[in-house]
Amino acid sequence: MLLEANGSSAAGATAGGSLQSICYERGSLRLLDQQRKLPLETVYLDVKDSTDGWTAIRDMVVRGAPAIAIAAALSLAVEVCNHDFNGTSEDASSLLIKKLEYLVSSRPTAVNLSDAVEKLRSLVLKTVETATEAKTVFQAYIDAAETMLIDDVASNKAIGFHGAKHLRSNLEGLEKISVLTHCNTGSLATAGYGTALGVIRALQSEGFLEKAFCTETRPFNQGSRLTAFELVHDQIPATLIADSAVAALMKAGHVNAVIVGADRIAANGDTANKIGTYNVAIAAFHHGIQFYVAAPITSIDLSISSGEQIVIEERSAKELLHSDGGRGKQVAASGISVWNPAFDVTPARLITAIITEKGVIIKKASDEAFDIKGFIETAK
Amino acid sequence: MLLEANGSSAAGATAGGSLQSICYERGSLRLLDQQRKLPLETVYLDVKDSTDGWTAIRDMVVRGAPAIAIAAALSLAVEVCNHDFNGTSEDASSLLIKKLEYLVSSRPTAVNLSDAVEKLRSLVLKTVETATEAKTVFQAYIDAAETMLIDDVASNKAIGFHGAKHLRSNLEGLEKISVLTHCNTGSLATAGYGTALGVIRALQSEGFLEKAFCTETRPFNQGSRLTAFELVHDQIPATLIADSAVAALMKAGHVNAVIVGADRIAANGDTANKIGTYNVAIAAFHHGIQFYVAAPITSIDLSISSGEQIVIEERSAKELLHSDGGRGKQVAASGISVWNPAFDVTPARLITAIITEKGVIIKKASDEAFDIKGFIETAK
Repeated sequence: MLLEANGSSAAGATAGGSLQSICYERGSLRLLDQQRKLPLETVYLDVKDSTDGWTAIRDMVVRGAPAIAIAAALSLAVEVCNHDFNGTSEDASSLLIKKLEYLVSSRPTAVNLSDAVEKLRSLVLKTVETATEAKTVFQAYIDAAETMLIDDVASNKAIGFHGAKHLRSNLEGLEKISVLTHCNTGSLATAGYGTALGVIRALQSEGFLEKAFCTETRPFNQGSRLTAFELVHDQIPATLIADSAVAALMKAGHVNAVIVGADRIAANGDTANKIGTYNVAIAAFHHGIQFYVAAPITSIDLSISSGEQIVIEERSAKELLHSDGGRGKQVAASGISVWNPAFDVTPARLITAIITEKGVIIKKASDEAFDIKGFIETAK
Repeated sequence: MLLEANGSSAAGATAGGSLQSICYERGSLRLLDQQRKLPLETVYLDVKDSTDGWTAIRDMVVRGAPAIAIAAALSLAVEVCNHDFNGTSEDASSLLIKKLEYLVSSRPTAVNLSDAVEKLRSLVLKTVETATEAKTVFQAYIDAAETMLIDDVASNKAIGFHGAKHLRSNLEGLEKISVLTHCNTGSLATAGYGTALGVIRALQSEGFLEKAFCTETRPFNQGSRLTAFELVHDQIPATLIADSAVAALMKAGHVNAVIVGADRIAANGDTANKIGTYNVAIAAFHHGIQFYVAAPITSIDLSISSGEQIVIEERSAKELLHSDGGRGKQVAASGISVWNPAFDVTPARLITAIITEKGVIIKKASDEAFDIKGFIETAK
């Protein structure tokens, strides 16, 4: 069985198709090495079991919240698919639950990972209630892990579809549009296709994209390393700019819309995303350029009413003091103190609309906040 | 004779004084190696003649428009001070003019350099009309070159004085203020003290500075390499941030004012400066934070009525594709195209006031442009 998100070529992608970071078919999992090799080499790492999966997550071979969760789940699926097992269904269930707990420990703070593990654990416990054979439990687990992969790609394709449709209708006077994005939200951060980059891929496949601009995304360079890599790979017309060139680019009239991803969206639409997103949003607002957030419904956290409640995590000073996002040699002056927030919060009033797999959440003209709860209830 | 801008210590600065990039006393010139050594090593290069001066400029040992012009002039002053000369005053004049033309060729597009050479050439030609001895011509040249050094530092100190006074009066409710700057406008770009960084130095010496924030200033990292180095050297409380963290810093309430330098100011106040300045100006405007330009009157070009007439120069893609502003190894994806403008234009409406050595140019409340011509005429 070859799943939708799989690549069939050695390079991990079908000809002309979008880049694959997770190459899976039943019994086999390969992950694109994003941390140590990209963008200079495209190397896939064979993942044979949950131990390999754990190591790949810890070493950041795979990154991006959805991608981490799915890679973890699939590494265990490959393990139980390929190994003979002599035991009862209860033994199988115990084994799976133990390994799932182990996988969570690779990145204890990753919410998507612990959510995914929780779902899989429930599925295993439910299956074992009626299953008499170990293989029934394993099969149920494998099916569920594969469904996660399929669902994530399908969800991203739906985001791309809704986003492209909305942009085409909102910018209908234009024959083609140019779009700016920030950070990496593509195949390298998800199970495939991407969120904000998924919309750009959809615009491209519909012939409506003039050009994509990606920021460098300092200090960790996700834009110049990863997004630029994906855009070149997929042969999408693209140009890289420094984060500091965003406003000049907009003033020069080269950008019709901005699309970014989200780490977390509050109930009113305030959006936490990679540091610099708020900078871009202000510049877009200043130039009257539409600013979109593209993210799955799972990124919405209705338990927080606004972005004020989101605590800004700080990252290592080394990312600014050393080259290549902290991996290279020292380039900044010794002794300088550093403030390096991981993300910022863009207020809802600067966001034109939020693109999800269930459709596009828009504002009432007179309202600066989004009624996200209402949208989700209607979409159900 | 030890001129005002000189340092007396081996490190090129008096204890507690501001960093010196140009260490001059009659017959001796040393330049801080900014391109190859900073910020990791503080190495001064002995410049014995105009050939050394030419090489130092071409190799970017010295950078910043005023600093280049003064270093060139002083390299020739040192040469003629230390060498015996058998010839007439006409021979001396011919020699100086030939060497000045040679110095211009080190950086043919540097306007300050060609302006300075033109002034020195006129001085030499005027002196030779009445001088009978070669040493009179040389002495006049040396005096004029030294005056350029003294005048540039004095001009920067006047900018610092006027700027600090204006900010203290404009933000008088505050006991101390924190200021954000972009790029490098300090001792490393001028003959000493600096323009925007001169205002920060003046605020610090008056006890009115809480903290200075400097941006990394991608892609060439003038902020993290040079401004951070100067701030640490001068023991000014300082924090480095990524360019993309500017808006988040402002939203967090950490910035009371922004001060930047200028490459060129149009007659209406539109200001061309390092790429990213316009980004910062928009973010400051959005957060209601005062945004100042600090520059000598010589940066004002009354022949251009607005920033629309300023052509944006583009720099090498390598600055983004390779680490350390193009000097290190490749870090970005191969095959991506790059847009790398050297500067952007900040419109006058986003600028609170322009700080010069003659005083501060403010706007009439109802007016979005500055009456710079009127200010200059009054200041004369």
